Amino acid sequence: MTAPINDLSRLCVHTMTTKPWSLEECIAGYTAAKIPAITVWRHHIEPIGAKEAGNMLRDSGLEVVSLCRGGFFPATSGQAREEARAENRRIIDEAAEIGAPLVVLVCGADPEIDLPTARQHIIDGIQAILPHAKAANVKLAIEPLHPMYADCRSAVNTLDQANNMVMALGSEYVGVAIDVYHCWWDPYLRAEIERATNTILAFHVCDWRTPTRDLLTDRGMMGEGCINIPEIRGWVEKAGFNGYIEVEIFSEEFWAQDQEKLLWRIKNAYLRHV
Amino acid sequence: MTAPINDLSRLCVHTMTTKPWSLEECIAGYTAAKIPAITVWRHHIEPIGAKEAGNMLRDSGLEVVSLCRGGFFPATSGQAREEARAENRRIIDEAAEIGAPLVVLVCGADPEIDLPTARQHIIDGIQAILPHAKAANVKLAIEPLHPMYADCRSAVNTLDQANNMVMALGSEYVGVAIDVYHCWWDPYLRAEIERATNTILAFHVCDWRTPTRDLLTDRGMMGEGCINIPEIRGWVEKAGFNGYIEVEIFSEEFWAQDQEKLLWRIKNAYLRHV
Repeated sequence: MTAPINDLSRLCVHTMTTKPWSLEECIAGYTAAKIPAITVWRHHIEPIGAKEAGNMLRDSGLEVVSLCRGGFFPATSGQAREEARAENRRIIDEAAEIGAPLVVLVCGADPEIDLPTARQHIIDGIQAILPHAKAANVKLAIEPLHPMYADCRSAVNTLDQANNMVMALGSEYVGVAIDVYHCWWDPYLRAEIERATNTILAFHVCDWRTPTRDLLTDRGMMGEGCINIPEIRGWVEKAGFNGYIEVEIFSEEFWAQDQEKLLWRIKNAYLRHV
Repeated sequence: MTAPINDLSRLCVHTMTTKPWSLEECIAGYTAAKIPAITVWRHHIEPIGAKEAGNMLRDSGLEVVSLCRGGFFPATSGQAREEARAENRRIIDEAAEIGAPLVVLVCGADPEIDLPTARQHIIDGIQAILPHAKAANVKLAIEPLHPMYADCRSAVNTLDQANNMVMALGSEYVGVAIDVYHCWWDPYLRAEIERATNTILAFHVCDWRTPTRDLLTDRGMMGEGCINIPEIRGWVEKAGFNGYIEVEIFSEEFWAQDQEKLLWRIKNAYLRHV
């Protein structure tokens, strides 16, 4: 049995979960709701820049868990792949500037590129930016994405593949991000989480709705879907992870609602269903 | 290199691909288009019954490749699981009646049932109906479905899992159905197809569109997506399969079009991109 969660001390919310809010509104809203930590999406930094965002975040007292997202390494030309690496180095700099110790990588895919080639582009890309990450003291988390995103978002679709990449790269600056939404169906999930012991850098939660009305923006609130989140959390914690539990929900339905009330729902669902 | 396809002799079309047509219209349309084989969905038998459907199909000279679909074994009560088995026995009888040597199994899943339990229900269900299948001389194909259907359509989501079930059941009346749409993303697909040697009972094709606008009814025509169909066909043929190649496309877009023209497009895409 997974130990129950009794307080909000490990709760982190992704700014994309409250997408209608600006970074300023996210900070004010999370702070008012006594949510201790935040993961920042670049979307929310863009209007003000990383420097200003960093100042706001430091003033807020919120713990910055990670910057989302780097990656998107595969490309049909060598020049485009170089540009992707340069962009990832800028993202690492942004993470350092906002005080995020981690960049989450959505590794990328392209319908024009076969999957084995895309995976090689990903390995090569991470290898190329690793010295920059190390110099900035920012870690990189490979996040396997659900196979329904293998065409254009990530050629890394199972934790097995992510673990293999972490092993191949062999650096303490590279680990995995585990999102229950992407991995819950995997018959080897428990074994692969065990294999990821001490390399789990992030843990994301939400739920899988039935029916799922959209491939991208119909994630569910914890407890309203079929994912056994406490069981997966138990495996992740047994594998040495005791960091923040990040609520990342893309949902047109929730984005259309009052975001303060949404935070209230998140806290309740977190205490009951995570 | 996979040997090219030079004629339509191995082409089979699923009646669900031309969903707006009745079985009578499917038979007339496929025959006129010189498509030699048909896979029949129960949807198309219902209005007339299996006996009448069988007579029509025998008169048509079309080869009946399979009946779609049996399965849906998991259920929360023992009684409901018994009912599912009884229903599957009726489906086997229908297959025999229409001259289909094969029933394709969409094995089932339920958001209320955890995946390992659902998988056990599936194994037990197939085991229970196997004597009936054997007596009717109808084979059963376990079709792994894409992980995006793990909540409510199938708890069998990789060919690895399907192969394990075939091995566990150990009967010449049980094999696998491989649909490129469900499996194309799998990093172990080639190895698992090799492992399925001589147990591949069906091969389904279509393509994965980018973007995919709907989880169920936005499959693409062969060649308009990112799946390397000839490569997968090569692996399947190397594993001993030389049966019909079945075009199974669920697409609101195509169903809204002229179905005769759709068959013409299918034949062209089949000769060029399969």
